[in-house]
Amino acid sequence: MKISLDNLLEELSGIEMITNLQQVAKLSGDYAHFSPVLVPLLADKVGDVVVRPRDEGEVLRIAQACVKYKIPLTVRGSGTGNYGQCTPLKGGVILETSRLQEIKWIKAGLASVETGVKLATVDKKAQEIGWELRMIPSMYKSATVGGFIAGGSGGIGSVTYGQLRDRGNLRAVRVVTLEDEPRIIELRGDDVQKVNHAYGTNGIITELEIPLAPAYEWMECVVSFRDFMTAARFGQALGNSDGLVKKMISVHAAPIPNYFTALQNYIPADAHCALVLVAESDRQPFQSLVAEFAGEICYEKSTLESSRESSKGINLIEFSWNHTTLLARAVDNSLTYLQSLFLNDPKLELVQKMHEHFGDEVMMHLEFIKVDGAVIPAAIQVVRFTTGDRLNEIIEYHESQGVFIANPHTYILEDGGMKVVDQNQLSFKRMVDPYGLMNPNKMRGWQN
Amino acid sequence: MKISLDNLLEELSGIEMITNLQQVAKLSGDYAHFSPVLVPLLADKVGDVVVRPRDEGEVLRIAQACVKYKIPLTVRGSGTGNYGQCTPLKGGVILETSRLQEIKWIKAGLASVETGVKLATVDKKAQEIGWELRMIPSMYKSATVGGFIAGGSGGIGSVTYGQLRDRGNLRAVRVVTLEDEPRIIELRGDDVQKVNHAYGTNGIITELEIPLAPAYEWMECVVSFRDFMTAARFGQALGNSDGLVKKMISVHAAPIPNYFTALQNYIPADAHCALVLVAESDRQPFQSLVAEFAGEICYEKSTLESSRESSKGINLIEFSWNHTTLLARAVDNSLTYLQSLFLNDPKLELVQKMHEHFGDEVMMHLEFIKVDGAVIPAAIQVVRFTTGDRLNEIIEYHESQGVFIANPHTYILEDGGMKVVDQNQLSFKRMVDPYGLMNPNKMRGWQN
Repeated sequence: MKISLDNLLEELSGIEMITNLQQVAKLSGDYAHFSPVLVPLLADKVGDVVVRPRDEGEVLRIAQACVKYKIPLTVRGSGTGNYGQCTPLKGGVILETSRLQEIKWIKAGLASVETGVKLATVDKKAQEIGWELRMIPSMYKSATVGGFIAGGSGGIGSVTYGQLRDRGNLRAVRVVTLEDEPRIIELRGDDVQKVNHAYGTNGIITELEIPLAPAYEWMECVVSFRDFMTAARFGQALGNSDGLVKKMISVHAAPIPNYFTALQNYIPADAHCALVLVAESDRQPFQSLVAEFAGEICYEKSTLESSRESSKGINLIEFSWNHTTLLARAVDNSLTYLQSLFLNDPKLELVQKMHEHFGDEVMMHLEFIKVDGAVIPAAIQVVRFTTGDRLNEIIEYHESQGVFIANPHTYILEDGGMKVVDQNQLSFKRMVDPYGLMNPNKMRGWQN
Repeated sequence: MKISLDNLLEELSGIEMITNLQQVAKLSGDYAHFSPVLVPLLADKVGDVVVRPRDEGEVLRIAQACVKYKIPLTVRGSGTGNYGQCTPLKGGVILETSRLQEIKWIKAGLASVETGVKLATVDKKAQEIGWELRMIPSMYKSATVGGFIAGGSGGIGSVTYGQLRDRGNLRAVRVVTLEDEPRIIELRGDDVQKVNHAYGTNGIITELEIPLAPAYEWMECVVSFRDFMTAARFGQALGNSDGLVKKMISVHAAPIPNYFTALQNYIPADAHCALVLVAESDRQPFQSLVAEFAGEICYEKSTLESSRESSKGINLIEFSWNHTTLLARAVDNSLTYLQSLFLNDPKLELVQKMHEHFGDEVMMHLEFIKVDGAVIPAAIQVVRFTTGDRLNEIIEYHESQGVFIANPHTYILEDGGMKVVDQNQLSFKRMVDPYGLMNPNKMRGWQN
């Protein structure tokens, strides 16, 4: 491979590249260090070189060179994934998208961007004309659009717009193939599902067309409750309140909020609480809902005063979703996490059962999202890790009770949330990546 | 009463009033003529005088005079209700709100208006700053804001924002009381429910604060299907599609669309079809959904070309909800209707059962709405009327099978959708209308 690689590098002259071992190693990783299971599996997995194409033409040249020399290619955005999505398991080229930064156009309800544009950048630009992204991950400040689509599933905003996989939440994708003659394919309509959440195993995404949502002024607010189940029921009730416009409902059992250091002056110690983003114009009826559940609003920030308040640096989005895990691990790095869906639990009985069964070993963290038209609790539980076997026991117990687990402790695409081989994605890979060069060993359906 | 009335009229000098019998009779009615049951019950029910106050001061004077002489008072907006909500059962004063026309303010997400402002007027004004009403009835061009709140329950937009009763969909109300010393009370927060959908039995609404929704460009579209259940399932699937923004999903079994004369050049004869309003920016994914259900888009209007197209006068809103009944009755005035909710029927089995059981006698017309966070089919069936007994049999069969009927063939508040006395509304009436003068004999809980 060494000779091939040297040839490849020569062939790519003029394209920005990084060969410094330390830097390449750094750019081979993501937030998989949240998982004590993944850490040893990915420890020595590094690429050989990082390339940073500045346009689709350079992407094509890289694709051609990789095919010519049969060098593996792994695409990387900002590396904010959690399952080693962008870690090259067989070395080779890491294609980093950070220079593909053009916003092609933004209009009412839609945006077209290059893959490496950061979500926060699109959001800001869209807000200038009264729109914003429908959903973002808690890492939206650094995460790229292409990385979110290739490696994410939903996030803040999913309580209203569902998940990335839902029809309408991704409109078009341009991908560069790794065929003998690499080419550009535009996928549109339901065809986008061929590469949506495929970890970059079947095409290099270069551009995307994504929908926008009307930009509200969002009130950020933390509500504390006397017990966890009241907080959870408040979250479900807010989710079901069709007359209240919301973007985030993030509910945390004690002691999770104790890990929110920056909020310690606001949240009472050992409180159970909900972190929410609700339309500023719905403040009054929201307060009525809080009163109905005997909640206490212990922190509040209105976007109306955001310029002043933001200097304090508190942004509730950055306490939700996997930022919760991040903050908990910043205090205690023996902690890890799970990802779950409570699909048939409108009264939250299963949530309660899991909460009570595991106690502090599996601390309940709910994120309410829409699935097929209904708001349900997803969970990103904070877990006190002891052994891999115990972690598996915890997962199996959840599954035996009817909780769907999207296992974050695997780098295999299908073994996370999907569970089965996506034939649509697999047959697209057969066409565009006949040599199996793209992000090898991530797609179980593909026999390398 | 004659002497009292003369005294009252004298006391109200300076306030616009109508005493011409024919005009008063006309202003005593609404669309209760949809119901062959209500027609004979309301036939001779007329007020004695119509007054048109031009401000809250005049409303107070009217209230004072009615209390002084113990004259019944019935409030009327534009009379677009369907259950005789504004028909005075014991004569007296009809207070028509058409001169209370001020839009106090409109800002992002909220509007404050006088009660007599037409919904279309608010919509138009709000659209100037990028907002619109969250929900409107099909009669929005003539219906007033106060009348919609006092007599309506939801409408176009309810598929996203739920019903008027849902927390957040009405923010504040000013009401004038009929106490010994009439006064103005402002209700805010959950207190608005005291007068929401109370038919004006417990206070004269003079001003309202209502929420707004972001104004989308709406694509209007009719999709035909090979059979009714496919159309119905398409409606449910569109309702459940979290990635598609919609304002109306109105599904009609054949032969209902045959009654849509103005659409006869577009809709194939005897077609089953869905009339929908979807965000223009969601056109492509919407078309994918249509294709999945093998639907045919037979009529389409984009707001982008609305100035040109609107000259044709086709507005799909005016074929939905009770406009369907109106149009059917324009062809065959022996037709009447029902109002139903299929609350626990996610697979539409009950919809199918009712559709097949009654055949052409009860033609299925679904309006999808959100109830407690889930999109469900409501129905405004078009019914071939034979006798009152048969109509009751039809209602009882629905109820026996688990369909909730909001009976439109009664003028009694509680006997429509409510079923039970609303103690909150009743106790508010005890306070503000101690003599039972307001819209008498409409609230069952009140013993006149």
